[in-house]
Amino acid sequence: MDTTFMPKALASHHHWYSSIVDSIKPMGPSSSDGHHSKPILLYTYSNAVHGFSAVLSQDELQAVKRSPGFLSAYSDSLATLDTTHTFEFLSLSSTTGLWPASKYGKDVIVGVIDSGVWPESPSFRDDGMTKIPSKWKGTCEDGQEFNSSLCNKKLIGARYFNKGVIAANPDLVLSMNSARDIDGHGTHTSSTVAGNYVEGASFFGYALGTARGVAPRARLAIYKVTWKEASTQASDIIAGIDQAVADGVDDSIAIASFGAMEKGVFVSCSAGNMGLRTGRLNNGNPWVLTVAAGSIDRWFAGTLTLGNGLIVTGWSMFPAKAVVENSRLVYNKTISACNSTEMLKGEPYEIIICDNTGEFREQIANIAASRFRAGIFISDNPRIFESNFFPYPGVVISPTDGQKVINYALTAGIYESSASIKFQQTFIGTITAPVVAAYTSRGPSPSYPGILKPDVMAPGTLVLAAWSPNVDTAQIDSNIFVASDFNAISGTSMACPHAAGIAALLKGVHPKWSPAAIRSAIMTTANPFDNTQNPIKDNALDLEIATPLAMGAGQVDPNRALDPGLIYDVTPQDYVDLLCSLNFTRNQILTITRSNSYPCLTSSSDLNYPSFIALYTYGAMGIFVQKFQRTVTNVGDGAATYKAEVTAPKGSVVTVSPDKMVFGKKYEKQSYFLTIHYSADENGTNTFGSIIWVEDNGKHRVRSPIVVSTTIEVWGS
Amino acid sequence: MDTTFMPKALASHHHWYSSIVDSIKPMGPSSSDGHHSKPILLYTYSNAVHGFSAVLSQDELQAVKRSPGFLSAYSDSLATLDTTHTFEFLSLSSTTGLWPASKYGKDVIVGVIDSGVWPESPSFRDDGMTKIPSKWKGTCEDGQEFNSSLCNKKLIGARYFNKGVIAANPDLVLSMNSARDIDGHGTHTSSTVAGNYVEGASFFGYALGTARGVAPRARLAIYKVTWKEASTQASDIIAGIDQAVADGVDDSIAIASFGAMEKGVFVSCSAGNMGLRTGRLNNGNPWVLTVAAGSIDRWFAGTLTLGNGLIVTGWSMFPAKAVVENSRLVYNKTISACNSTEMLKGEPYEIIICDNTGEFREQIANIAASRFRAGIFISDNPRIFESNFFPYPGVVISPTDGQKVINYALTAGIYESSASIKFQQTFIGTITAPVVAAYTSRGPSPSYPGILKPDVMAPGTLVLAAWSPNVDTAQIDSNIFVASDFNAISGTSMACPHAAGIAALLKGVHPKWSPAAIRSAIMTTANPFDNTQNPIKDNALDLEIATPLAMGAGQVDPNRALDPGLIYDVTPQDYVDLLCSLNFTRNQILTITRSNSYPCLTSSSDLNYPSFIALYTYGAMGIFVQKFQRTVTNVGDGAATYKAEVTAPKGSVVTVSPDKMVFGKKYEKQSYFLTIHYSADENGTNTFGSIIWVEDNGKHRVRSPIVVSTTIEVWGS
Repeated sequence: MDTTFMPKALASHHHWYSSIVDSIKPMGPSSSDGHHSKPILLYTYSNAVHGFSAVLSQDELQAVKRSPGFLSAYSDSLATLDTTHTFEFLSLSSTTGLWPASKYGKDVIVGVIDSGVWPESPSFRDDGMTKIPSKWKGTCEDGQEFNSSLCNKKLIGARYFNKGVIAANPDLVLSMNSARDIDGHGTHTSSTVAGNYVEGASFFGYALGTARGVAPRARLAIYKVTWKEASTQASDIIAGIDQAVADGVDDSIAIASFGAMEKGVFVSCSAGNMGLRTGRLNNGNPWVLTVAAGSIDRWFAGTLTLGNGLIVTGWSMFPAKAVVENSRLVYNKTISACNSTEMLKGEPYEIIICDNTGEFREQIANIAASRFRAGIFISDNPRIFESNFFPYPGVVISPTDGQKVINYALTAGIYESSASIKFQQTFIGTITAPVVAAYTSRGPSPSYPGILKPDVMAPGTLVLAAWSPNVDTAQIDSNIFVASDFNAISGTSMACPHAAGIAALLKGVHPKWSPAAIRSAIMTTANPFDNTQNPIKDNALDLEIATPLAMGAGQVDPNRALDPGLIYDVTPQDYVDLLCSLNFTRNQILTITRSNSYPCLTSSSDLNYPSFIALYTYGAMGIFVQKFQRTVTNVGDGAATYKAEVTAPKGSVVTVSPDKMVFGKKYEKQSYFLTIHYSADENGTNTFGSIIWVEDNGKHRVRSPIVVSTTIEVWGS
Repeated sequence: MDTTFMPKALASHHHWYSSIVDSIKPMGPSSSDGHHSKPILLYTYSNAVHGFSAVLSQDELQAVKRSPGFLSAYSDSLATLDTTHTFEFLSLSSTTGLWPASKYGKDVIVGVIDSGVWPESPSFRDDGMTKIPSKWKGTCEDGQEFNSSLCNKKLIGARYFNKGVIAANPDLVLSMNSARDIDGHGTHTSSTVAGNYVEGASFFGYALGTARGVAPRARLAIYKVTWKEASTQASDIIAGIDQAVADGVDDSIAIASFGAMEKGVFVSCSAGNMGLRTGRLNNGNPWVLTVAAGSIDRWFAGTLTLGNGLIVTGWSMFPAKAVVENSRLVYNKTISACNSTEMLKGEPYEIIICDNTGEFREQIANIAASRFRAGIFISDNPRIFESNFFPYPGVVISPTDGQKVINYALTAGIYESSASIKFQQTFIGTITAPVVAAYTSRGPSPSYPGILKPDVMAPGTLVLAAWSPNVDTAQIDSNIFVASDFNAISGTSMACPHAAGIAALLKGVHPKWSPAAIRSAIMTTANPFDNTQNPIKDNALDLEIATPLAMGAGQVDPNRALDPGLIYDVTPQDYVDLLCSLNFTRNQILTITRSNSYPCLTSSSDLNYPSFIALYTYGAMGIFVQKFQRTVTNVGDGAATYKAEVTAPKGSVVTVSPDKMVFGKKYEKQSYFLTIHYSADENGTNTFGSIIWVEDNGKHRVRSPIVVSTTIEVWGS
């Protein structure tokens, strides 16, 4: 709604929206909806957006559309949600860098719009937390199995939003009508972003250690918008974000909202878990931080020891301390595909070796149905190490190690062979990491392909965080399901709260920075190299070098983000100019911005973004030129001189003008042009490079990725 | 050996025994033993017994028998071993009673002759332990995977004894040739008697709490004498006890030793786990404390919640936090015996109700082989609650509750029914306890039937204590075996260390008391009533009232044992007099006592024991009379007057003379006669009563059980 049309006599937007809905005479059941007999107002929104949601027949909708101030209407839509040594992996330290600088986020309030929270989880205890900041205006709502006394100085607020889901499913009975999380997802993301310290946390013995959130002293405000019994409704999500902004959160994990950004609320969102499928990147809006998922330098091991002394470190996440000691090894070509439960009903209490057939999930299910005591699975499929699925005792080993184990088994013979497996072992720092997760969704963004998305990558694979204790987290054998207070799961939903936590910490250090400035700091300091100092690889592409369409600028580096040197800032008007260039109608733009203060001015598609993407249509001929203008703000300590270091995408020429920027003082701005001359690659291969603004004294390196990419098929759809 | 024959020129008994063995010329392989070519001395014993063990052919044995000082020889024999809230159940308290009085046993050293120790178990950390008492003369032996640095102020000594087992099995390769426990039993008994405080201990979530030993500040000296690879040899056990006495232990858990008793070492032993089978009571020697096992007031629950709101507290020890939420209930008469895996391959992810067929173990195995998600087992067999066997999610409920659940399942129908089960729940104090364990061995003692055995009962059922972490403690499904740092197991071996811990605490308070005095204090203060103030029942006999042949004087009561009022003391000579009366030969007696200082004097079968048993042969006719004499020592604070309260066994007449004893001061002794007139019961039923010496001021009640029993068939065998 355009609020300039609100009659001055009305006390609030809520009264206005109520009067509009109430003024519609009941028009009887519409053909499409036999349930309601009069219009029902669900939510009124006044913070992140202006407007309301209501259950209306088509005739009633037409009446609303004739109301003064009406901008646009959308039918409620189904929203999709994606899915602890990580702080060490991110080099967060108690002695130096972002943690002490931000006081661990103690004055920051993080809003989590998700499936709610399990308030009794030890991650939400408030030991060591100080008084709640006075800016907090939210509340802790009573509800089913949720008493407001469950909130504390860590979990400062909890609300739930179900009007949309009930309107869409009028007969629905909610099994937990409160902010209590009976899914686990919201508890996991909340504890990842700002969970308190919990000693002895583990996933059934794996990843054992002291769990904590990225911002362990930040506060959590929970907005439950997803419900187990039905798909999530956008109206509930918008209500959650709207309330979060009103309550005074600084930072939120949510389906993005322009309004939240405009109020200075940082919004980070997961890129989605659709892997290489093009055009399936979520949350690609220009005003949010879109986060891809990568691996952690952690290995969950089963250690295999053979009778000849050979020790092989395999992979296992069997969720119990299984005892496999001095068992015989069976390697028999007639059954070693492990693809038949019938053939596998062999000698009990032995270990069978299964060949590298690529069917680990099928093989382990067959071993479970047999009477073998454990399986050794030979595999070179790295996606196994992105999942906690391991329902039977055993170990996954590489083909190289597999050959050694087979040789031993055949040489020793069944009756003289002997092997033991130790479970629940966790090794840190021993593997190449991060690697882009196979499942993370790839850019370009279908909604705004001219803005390079995702923005950055954060740890998302097998992240340990709190979970709802009555929801199973692992499977044993075919039909035993077990739960634990912590879960180790994978997804961009697990990466997103890492980025949100870092943003919260940065907000604590730089409370005046805009969401775009914080995002710029995170992006320009991100690391495109892994812990072996080689370019980060992609698990979906046989460990080829990963592109920015998979990981954005690279892996988040929180301590460097604390002091980025230069920032690329963006004003709300800049985003409007982008929308104008995309031929959004005035009403569409008002729906997003809900304010007349942002007219279409320059209609620029060239947002002041800390990354660059040049597009071409697959099969096009000739040379293309794309020119970008950027303005950077010096946030270093004083005068500074920067020079450009450019690495052009293969087959392209990149020029920068000027290629040197001299800043006389802090907060001074300088602009530059970056021009890409490129041609279409006949195979449609995407190419990538970078521009790094390097300070003369070497103190700051401000990096942006450059991508030349084909457009995607869903473009415009 | 009779040490008076030792040549004076020799420096030690060891030299003497060596010279005897060395003097025997090798006589070649004997027919019974093809391995050794010359006599081998295994151990020399000088503390608990005098003598040695050696590998000898028959000819070589004859040569030894001709040596001066030879008393007797025995072929090495196979010894049998019997298998945390208990301290609260025993009313041990930090504010009053035995714990503070004994300073938690801080100056007491407990020797554990068992399968060794897992030194890294948190129960053996020495946080809070003071300096090791100067009387300690033992050592911490290096060995395989056992460095002497593993000992500390809690685990002050560790030795291992393998000569006997190797001599009996010359080709044996010991897989852990050190004091390290690769069985778990010794770790469990050690931590039960004197384990340090360990927070968060549990058996897969059951019995969760702070574990501790009965004497949490006592020291542990470990003597490993049992080996995984072969049966335990008596020579190794004797060597262990002998060394324990030499090292300076105060208290030991072991196959009993007269010598240990004579040196003031309290020896407690488990009665055995043979249940009702007559004549199978172990460790019935008069000079040890023989301990029966009882239950604890603890219930490991699966809580079943039905869709109609009915909540049933069942029994479950499934060793994981299984998730069974809102599953359908299946009750179908054609499969409800749950005795066929084929018939059970029904609809997956449901809960099946199994009828009370008495075959729980078979039923749960069948459910595991099916695709059901859980089982509800209707049973009235209380022995289920003595075992931790529970390899599949489910719950055992009573027939009464079972009928309610069946009614609900049939009324609701499969598709509308709903049930949830919560696991890992522990309830305290809600059930009648203690109950005599079904498995505990029953008296009379086959070796000394004229002394009532067992002496007392202590908690033995599902006792939580430390375990060797590489030895499985539970089973999931048919062939997954899992381990944990703590195990909850049942047996008289678990009861024995409770009694030993109490003895250690009493030794700390009364360092001058003889082992017999400590035993008397424990026995005369034991409680024949359960926590409902009714007579303790017997789980092996459909909860009939338990007899002293099952539980001795009753359940140990440590705080009352601190101040027993009167004690029945026994000297070593008294035991010899008993042996003399049993027609032991001079040499047999010397073998036990290894000292000429104990001649046969009075040849009395009437030991000054704090209990009474009168025997008759089954089927005998007429009236029998047995007269006992007892002498008690006043250990109260000063002058005291006691009067006898007698409850005669049914059908018997018991007279006491005098029936009043007046003590002028502390440590004064008084004697009395107790005469039982009894006749044979035609059904062979055992009858029982008691005598309680009650102090005039009511402060002390000194109780002894009285039993009239048939002799047992193995008598004399």
